[in-house]
Amino acid sequence: MDHIITLNSGSSSLKFGLFTTTGDDPVLICSGEVESIGSAAAHISAKTTDGRVLVDTTSEALHDQASALDYILDFLEREFPAARVAAVGHRIVHGGPDNDRPILLTPDSLQVLEKLEPFAPLHQPYNLHGARAAMERFPDAKQVACFDTAFHRHHPWVNDTFALPTEYYDIGVRRYGFHGLSYDYISDHLANTAPLIHGGRVVVAHLGNGASMCAMIAGRSVGSSMGFSAMDGLPMGTRCGQLDPGVVLYLMDQQGMNADEISDLLYRKSGLLGLSGMTNDMRTLEASNTPGARNAINYYTFRIRRELGALAAVLGGLDAVVFTGGIGENSTYIRDRICTDMGWLGIELDHDANADNRRVISTDLSRVKLMVIPTNEELVIARAAAAQIG
Amino acid sequence: MDHIITLNSGSSSLKFGLFTTTGDDPVLICSGEVESIGSAAAHISAKTTDGRVLVDTTSEALHDQASALDYILDFLEREFPAARVAAVGHRIVHGGPDNDRPILLTPDSLQVLEKLEPFAPLHQPYNLHGARAAMERFPDAKQVACFDTAFHRHHPWVNDTFALPTEYYDIGVRRYGFHGLSYDYISDHLANTAPLIHGGRVVVAHLGNGASMCAMIAGRSVGSSMGFSAMDGLPMGTRCGQLDPGVVLYLMDQQGMNADEISDLLYRKSGLLGLSGMTNDMRTLEASNTPGARNAINYYTFRIRRELGALAAVLGGLDAVVFTGGIGENSTYIRDRICTDMGWLGIELDHDANADNRRVISTDLSRVKLMVIPTNEELVIARAAAAQIG
Repeated sequence: MDHIITLNSGSSSLKFGLFTTTGDDPVLICSGEVESIGSAAAHISAKTTDGRVLVDTTSEALHDQASALDYILDFLEREFPAARVAAVGHRIVHGGPDNDRPILLTPDSLQVLEKLEPFAPLHQPYNLHGARAAMERFPDAKQVACFDTAFHRHHPWVNDTFALPTEYYDIGVRRYGFHGLSYDYISDHLANTAPLIHGGRVVVAHLGNGASMCAMIAGRSVGSSMGFSAMDGLPMGTRCGQLDPGVVLYLMDQQGMNADEISDLLYRKSGLLGLSGMTNDMRTLEASNTPGARNAINYYTFRIRRELGALAAVLGGLDAVVFTGGIGENSTYIRDRICTDMGWLGIELDHDANADNRRVISTDLSRVKLMVIPTNEELVIARAAAAQIG
Repeated sequence: MDHIITLNSGSSSLKFGLFTTTGDDPVLICSGEVESIGSAAAHISAKTTDGRVLVDTTSEALHDQASALDYILDFLEREFPAARVAAVGHRIVHGGPDNDRPILLTPDSLQVLEKLEPFAPLHQPYNLHGARAAMERFPDAKQVACFDTAFHRHHPWVNDTFALPTEYYDIGVRRYGFHGLSYDYISDHLANTAPLIHGGRVVVAHLGNGASMCAMIAGRSVGSSMGFSAMDGLPMGTRCGQLDPGVVLYLMDQQGMNADEISDLLYRKSGLLGLSGMTNDMRTLEASNTPGARNAINYYTFRIRRELGALAAVLGGLDAVVFTGGIGENSTYIRDRICTDMGWLGIELDHDANADNRRVISTDLSRVKLMVIPTNEELVIARAAAAQIG
């Protein structure tokens, strides 16, 4: 029986999943994570799909992606000795202008993806470290790269460009959009379970620690709140979201900050954390009564509502809104705040259904259908990997 | 009889108007402009309100704001020897977080406004040069500063902040919004001529060489497409409009550009000029069949439509859209492109009325009223100056 491993390598974390491929669709049997890679106490945790904890420990020896991956793979061999890894699926943040679907990783294609590192310097290098380590460890397995940008690569040009001289578009300064694996999952899920909605004008709000919104027509992305980088659009846990480019120039020119300092400010100290002055965790903010916490939630929901109006214009009207991601799937309060007083757009929230976390949370009379669908990015990666071993 | 001079001092231009104050409202009798100040051939032009050309010449001697202003004031004394200048009204781009109305210029208040130069380094210093020169020339006249930011200073906090750590808000990194004198004029005009619309939810699209949109409720600004600087929001003649802050970091970090080079790119080489590769002039673009010209217009109208949806969300629905500014007042084609297929928002354009440049260009059945109102920023300045000599 073939198995598939999915990997998501960040700068200091490594998430993994182990899937079997017995049926039509890959089935997750174990998932876990290494956190704080490179620190004196990297934390390793893993559990089976039915919730059994297999490991929950720390290690001083996990200095980099390769040693973390070795640790995980040794662990998987020990726990699942019969597993034969036929393919490894990698989450890669950036596929560049051309990749609109997963690709097989080879030394050549890896080199092409390395050239995209300047577009996503905080993510792409680590994604590729993980891929390289897996290729060494499983020389015979198919290695498949799944891109966060791929789902958006057929945007109309007006949604792909900025108003810069065209040579910048040509060298790759475009509105890529991200969270494409999540949107891909939602699109597929709608096609299978709600084909009439899938065929219409849908905005998907992926609200997690990162956050973006995607405008879809007939299941294909035509616009995104995110642009060139993963910090544009909606405010996020620690990222600023939409920001006047003049602010960046002001920080450079008047505050004497360099690119690294500005990047650190906009990626790691802004968003919910910056506005609240306390945390990037939405549950903590919801439970707090401080002005900072209330401000952060007010701004967060306001910008989502504003973007919903903007994406309705991109779509020429709206048939459905889908909430997904950690906050989108679980926060009754945030969904309520987003959907209240949106009658002008045809939105009427069913407060009871919302409080119950039902799949459909709009009233029967709401012109726009409101849905909650848990996303599953790992499954999208596993499916892409499975397709290669078909 | 008292007269009022209005001044708008840019980096290389000086616009002026001469008003009488006989009736309830100041009346313009002469207006003109010095262009290319500091060049070997500064161009001076002026005409009376009924179209008589009083001067149209060049000069080698206009090295700076002060000499240009002297030239203009000598000219006005010669042509209007009976005029007694009781007040000078100045357009000042930035009033900072606190000024929500015009103020009297004094040495003290000038100093406070100088401290705002880092917020608008390309405009504020030149605005203040002009003010200082006028104060020397007319020591006995009231000098009144009218700010492009003032009309927006009562935005709800969510429309005034970015998702940065709050200390940046405290030092003045806010969404100021601009074109406030134009929006002030439109609001006042609606109050006098269409009070029911004035009382509702209105988006005003100021589409000139600069461009922004303002969301008003009951005639007061609650949101703007512009933010901290005058380059955010809509694409403009040479300015980029909305841009992922990650692009600025990419230009710094990966393209090795410094703040001045990036500023020059985003302020002077982007927008319609950058996308078309030919011009920032909308009439030329409309008359052209090149792909660049079509792309520039497609992007321009697309972003306006997108922002209209966003500002409708800010307003919680839409009662009217007002077009103003050079393009908004005169381009049948651009208004048509913006308003077509916007039925989802209750907009139905009357194509004949639009072609005729009528004041109301929506159909009788359009739920949202569409209007064209020529703006008059100089009159707003003259009124503020007149109020000081009451």
